[in-house]
Amino acid sequence: MRVLGIDPGLRNMGWGVIEVSGSRLSHVANGVCHSVGDDLAGRLLSLHEQLTEVFRAYMPTMAAVEQTFVNKDGAGTLKLGQARGIALLVPAQAGVPVAEYAPNQIKKTVVGVGHADKRQVQHMVAMQLPGCHFDSADAADALAIAICHAHHGGAASRLAAAIGEARR
Amino acid sequence: MRVLGIDPGLRNMGWGVIEVSGSRLSHVANGVCHSVGDDLAGRLLSLHEQLTEVFRAYMPTMAAVEQTFVNKDGAGTLKLGQARGIALLVPAQAGVPVAEYAPNQIKKTVVGVGHADKRQVQHMVAMQLPGCHFDSADAADALAIAICHAHHGGAASRLAAAIGEARR
Repeated sequence: MRVLGIDPGLRNMGWGVIEVSGSRLSHVANGVCHSVGDDLAGRLLSLHEQLTEVFRAYMPTMAAVEQTFVNKDGAGTLKLGQARGIALLVPAQAGVPVAEYAPNQIKKTVVGVGHADKRQVQHMVAMQLPGCHFDSADAADALAIAICHAHHGGAASRLAAAIGEARR
Repeated sequence: MRVLGIDPGLRNMGWGVIEVSGSRLSHVANGVCHSVGDDLAGRLLSLHEQLTEVFRAYMPTMAAVEQTFVNKDGAGTLKLGQARGIALLVPAQAGVPVAEYAPNQIKKTVVGVGHADKRQVQHMVAMQLPGCHFDSADAADALAIAICHAHHGGAASRLAAAIGEARR
């Protein structure tokens, strides 16, 4: 199983790919898509193109996106929503299932506590993916999302399959 | 000039195409993309596919999208943002410029007052596009957006061109 984690954002969209083999995780690649262009449509297009290229290059079989924390800043929520639309569309276009995880669940899975700070997350991501280097916090967050899915996604799929079996 | 107006929404995305020849407007087509699927990514994919099909079928040369009114409902804003990301992406992928208009500006252009209700908008859209029929309010709104762009977009393009000339 190869998991792509995506940390959505209109300016910077972090991504990270890991390989999951049983309980063993390994780092494949990570990076950030930077939106280019003056107008909103052009920026969304550039994010779409870069994320599509990540899919082509690394062929993930599962994707996971951070659930957005809806805050009081309506304009910020709208911007993030637009970027998030692209982050969800690209896996769907590739026929890859997309899971969503709340920020607290990601931190709890990766660090052990739901209120961990960015530095703790980055430290634990580096520990769990030996040899992994990341330049930005967005890419580290994306890897954390992928790790979270590696832990929960497999179990959820097995549970769904077991329920399906039981119903037959 | 052929203008596609889009009224973004996650459940129903209205669209309307008009032809602009000088000051003469005529109706080409209108409809609503209904998102299909259980999960968010699948719904966004279905909107993307349907809107892409509208582009293929009617080949607009300009697009206009309603500017979203950011309200206090954060979850609603996020949903709309995600749908809006698709509404802006599809024209950009087709290389078609996308304009954005505030709801009040659209109403003011089509009806004459910024606080017009839905029925007034529908009445004036039908008046300005003889022979046009629309089944839903979303499609009528999309046609209103296209009409708004027909009035303002041409002037804006000419202004931009004139400024460009003056600078050379």
